[in-house]
Amino acid sequence: MLSVRVLGSSSAMPLHGRHHSAQWLQYENLYFLLDCGEATQHQLLRYRLPFPKLNAIFITHLHADHVGGLAGLLTTLHMQGRQKPLYLFGPVGLRAFLEGQLLGTFSALRYPLYIQEMLLRREKVLLWEDNRIEAWGFPLQHGVPTNGYLFVEKPKPRRLDPARFAESGLPNKLLPLLKQQGEIVHEGRRITWDSVSLPPPPPRSYAYCTDTTFTTEIADFVSGVTVLYHEATFLSEHQDRAKQTFHSTAREAALIAEASHAQRLYIGHFSTRYKDLLPLLEEARQYFAETYLVEEGQTLAFP
Amino acid sequence: MLSVRVLGSSSAMPLHGRHHSAQWLQYENLYFLLDCGEATQHQLLRYRLPFPKLNAIFITHLHADHVGGLAGLLTTLHMQGRQKPLYLFGPVGLRAFLEGQLLGTFSALRYPLYIQEMLLRREKVLLWEDNRIEAWGFPLQHGVPTNGYLFVEKPKPRRLDPARFAESGLPNKLLPLLKQQGEIVHEGRRITWDSVSLPPPPPRSYAYCTDTTFTTEIADFVSGVTVLYHEATFLSEHQDRAKQTFHSTAREAALIAEASHAQRLYIGHFSTRYKDLLPLLEEARQYFAETYLVEEGQTLAFP
Repeated sequence: MLSVRVLGSSSAMPLHGRHHSAQWLQYENLYFLLDCGEATQHQLLRYRLPFPKLNAIFITHLHADHVGGLAGLLTTLHMQGRQKPLYLFGPVGLRAFLEGQLLGTFSALRYPLYIQEMLLRREKVLLWEDNRIEAWGFPLQHGVPTNGYLFVEKPKPRRLDPARFAESGLPNKLLPLLKQQGEIVHEGRRITWDSVSLPPPPPRSYAYCTDTTFTTEIADFVSGVTVLYHEATFLSEHQDRAKQTFHSTAREAALIAEASHAQRLYIGHFSTRYKDLLPLLEEARQYFAETYLVEEGQTLAFP
Repeated sequence: MLSVRVLGSSSAMPLHGRHHSAQWLQYENLYFLLDCGEATQHQLLRYRLPFPKLNAIFITHLHADHVGGLAGLLTTLHMQGRQKPLYLFGPVGLRAFLEGQLLGTFSALRYPLYIQEMLLRREKVLLWEDNRIEAWGFPLQHGVPTNGYLFVEKPKPRRLDPARFAESGLPNKLLPLLKQQGEIVHEGRRITWDSVSLPPPPPRSYAYCTDTTFTTEIADFVSGVTVLYHEATFLSEHQDRAKQTFHSTAREAALIAEASHAQRLYIGHFSTRYKDLLPLLEEARQYFAETYLVEEGQTLAFP
C-alpha cells in the first residue's frame, strides 16, 4: 500500500519551521526518498523513519533546496555500515555534483551507488519496476533539467468471492485449476474465474511534481493519478514572480489537478514570503475542491 | 566582549538531538562562524542569531560534518539579498569543493566571497585582525588538512583611576597630555600615566580545536588561552578507535588544556556511540578540573 510522508514543504530557505523538499515513500518493504534538501537526514531521524532500508532516491533537480542533504545522507548511510546497493535517479549533472562533493570531503562510500542520470525532453520513461510497483520519470519546466516522478501500483489479481464460488457448486479442489485456466466446464456448466471473483482495488498512484512552471503537459503525464503533489510556491497575486522563477501558483497547481482528473491534490514548496498558508489553500480550492496543504511530518491520505 | 554560542556537538552523524559542528562567535559587532555542518542555517534560525551580519567563516577541514551546510548557508545569504563581502578561511581544497557545489546547483552569489585557503604545516599564522581582535590559524593532525583557530582580544589601554588622579593634584585639563605623553612634570613633581591609571583587564582568547589526534603541539599554539574548545570524540576505553580515526579522547583533551594553562576547557564533537556524556566529563575532570561539556544552544562562559 502506497504511503507518503512529508519531510519538508519550504522553497528556497528553511523558514517558519518548514524544511527543504524531501518526501519518504513506502510501498510494502520498498522505501524511496523523493528529493533530499539540507537536513533531510535530521528529518528522517525526527520522524523515526527506517532510512537504512532505503532502496532508491529520486532527485527532481539540482537546486540546493532539493539536493543540499544528499551527500550528507549518503555519507551517514556509509557510516551506518550499509552494504546493500542504493539506486539514485536524477537529471544530468547529478553524478558530477555528487562526486565533487564526496571527493571534496574525502568521503568514499562502501556500498554500491547506481546513479541513473536523465535528460528528459518530452517523454515519460519507466525508470524502475518490480512485480508490485513502477516508477516513471517525465520532464518538468524549471529552467534547469528537472524531472517529475510518478509511482504506480501494478494491477493486483482478482480476489475470490467465497459466496459466489459456493453458489457455483464447484468443488474446492478445482479452484486452483479455475484460477489458472480462467474457466472450467463442470457437470456440463461453464464456470469462469471472473464470475466467482471480485475485481482488485484500482491501482493507486502518486505523482511528485516540483519545481515547475505551469505547463499542461504535466496533466497528460499524470493523467488519472490518485494523489498529485504539485508545487504551489506562490499566490496568483505573485504570478509574475512565479513566471520569472519557473514556479507555479496555487491556482495553476489546481488546474493541473483538474485537468489530470486527480482524486486529490496536495500543494507544497511554499515561498517563505507566506507565513500563513491558508490563502494558498483557499485559492487552489476555487479550482479544485480536493486540495490540501502538506504539513511537515504528515502522512498523505490516499482516497 | 568575546561570546561563543554552540550550534552542534556531534561527530559524524547527527544523533541524540546533537547536530554537526558549528559555533557562532561574536565580538562586539563582529560575527564569525566556526565550521558549518549540515543544518547550521537551521540552527542559526532556531537560536535567532543575526547571521545576515556574518563577517567571516572559519572552516577547520573538509569532512562532511564540518562543511555539509556551507553551500546552503551561502546560498541563503544570497537569497536574503546580501551585498557585503564575506570572508571564508579554510584548508586547501575549500575553493574547489565549494565552487563545485555552487556550480552543480546552478547557484551564483551576488555578494563578494573572499576565500583564503591555507595548508599549514608547523606554523601559526595571523589570518585576520582589526583594532579589536586577531584570528590565528594553526595546524591540527587529522589525516586531512585541518586548521585550528585562535581568537585573541587585543590589549585594551589602561583606564583612569579617578581617586589616584585626584591625589596627584594634576589639573583635569592636563589629563589628555598625560595620556599622550605618558608623563608630565607639574609643580616640580614627575607624574606618570601608569601611576594614576589601572591596568586593562587581561585580553581574553578562545581556541577552537577540532578535529585532531592528540598532539602536544596544540598546547604551544594556544598557550595561555582563556577558553579552550577541544574535541573529545571518545573515552579512553576507545583509545584505539581514537588513534585510527585521528580523534582525541576526553583525557587527551584535558591534557592539552592542562599543558596550555587554559583557564577553562569545553569538550565536544562527541561520538554517537555515547548517548550519555557524563563519563566523558568525568574522565576529563580527572586531568583538568575546569572541564565542561558543550551543550547545543549554550553560550560558553568565559572566566
